[in-house]
Amino acid sequence: MDNDQQYDHLKEKLISSERIFDGKVIKVDHSRVKLPNGAEADREIVYHKGAVCLIAVQDNQMLFVRQYRVSTEEFLLEIPAGKIEEGEAPIETARKELREEVGGTAGELKKIQSFYVSPGFSNEYVHLYEAADVSFKPQKLDDDEFLDIVKIDLDQLRVELESGAFKDAKTIVAVQHVLATHNL
Amino acid sequence: MDNDQQYDHLKEKLISSERIFDGKVIKVDHSRVKLPNGAEADREIVYHKGAVCLIAVQDNQMLFVRQYRVSTEEFLLEIPAGKIEEGEAPIETARKELREEVGGTAGELKKIQSFYVSPGFSNEYVHLYEAADVSFKPQKLDDDEFLDIVKIDLDQLRVELESGAFKDAKTIVAVQHVLATHNL
Repeated sequence: MDNDQQYDHLKEKLISSERIFDGKVIKVDHSRVKLPNGAEADREIVYHKGAVCLIAVQDNQMLFVRQYRVSTEEFLLEIPAGKIEEGEAPIETARKELREEVGGTAGELKKIQSFYVSPGFSNEYVHLYEAADVSFKPQKLDDDEFLDIVKIDLDQLRVELESGAFKDAKTIVAVQHVLATHNL
Repeated sequence: MDNDQQYDHLKEKLISSERIFDGKVIKVDHSRVKLPNGAEADREIVYHKGAVCLIAVQDNQMLFVRQYRVSTEEFLLEIPAGKIEEGEAPIETARKELREEVGGTAGELKKIQSFYVSPGFSNEYVHLYEAADVSFKPQKLDDDEFLDIVKIDLDQLRVELESGAFKDAKTIVAVQHVLATHNL
């Protein structure tokens, strides 16, 4: 999508913003916009530095991590992921998270896709990489990070997807990609 | 994932929460948790009522909407979607959004999948439906909603996906689902 003049009839313009919260992970603004018809409306916006996530397949198994998410009050089975730190290139974050979360080192990291996760209120942008030739050492988790490594056989992936084993968008995008590219 | 005792070694416990923002779309808490090792950590949490989104395919074309998202400062090509209102069943929201955003009425709505979009900080949960036998009348947009309907031929979908035309997670999940189920 180009930010093209041909879409001016859709464009909202930011009039003012109040910074409600300036956290370590998110910043929250309560903003006022001018709509294409000249009327005004409120917008609640969450700013986030972005994240990376990783497809890692080895020996016909795909790698996941099980972790507790206090926001959803559930244990989720997700692909390895992490927030991009200030000044970090996404591919560096990807290498770091692969090493820390699952103890992996990749020969190559290929960018598959980038996507917003909830553009209705947030600018969080996630980069999905695929790791090739991964070798493993023990995890090196952050002090406040607790997770289990879970390996799922590729020929079980579709069954797990259809049974609802994966409950977050980035993981579903990644599993669908692996199913399509491995002809599963 | 069951919230099972076998994962107690991963579980964080909420100790306290401060409500930072009580908006119309989101509520933001700054919380303190106890980690599995007994240490404490901060968590920034965004609560959201959840949303629905829709796959609508008709005459070998898939339906999208182009809209401006002030949070991302971009025009995005997304599948039709909308927030669940208080007391509304997700399938009712899906029927309403289909009618309002693209003027569609579906014979049947089939639930494909539900997913969190950003479980690291938010409980937003999105339900993806597939609409069958859709017929169309003019759009009935909300007062603060401005969007264009865009139809993409099914045989162009993979090219559009791989070229990065779709930039948000729910839309990529939906497109990959259509590609897989239509053998495209």
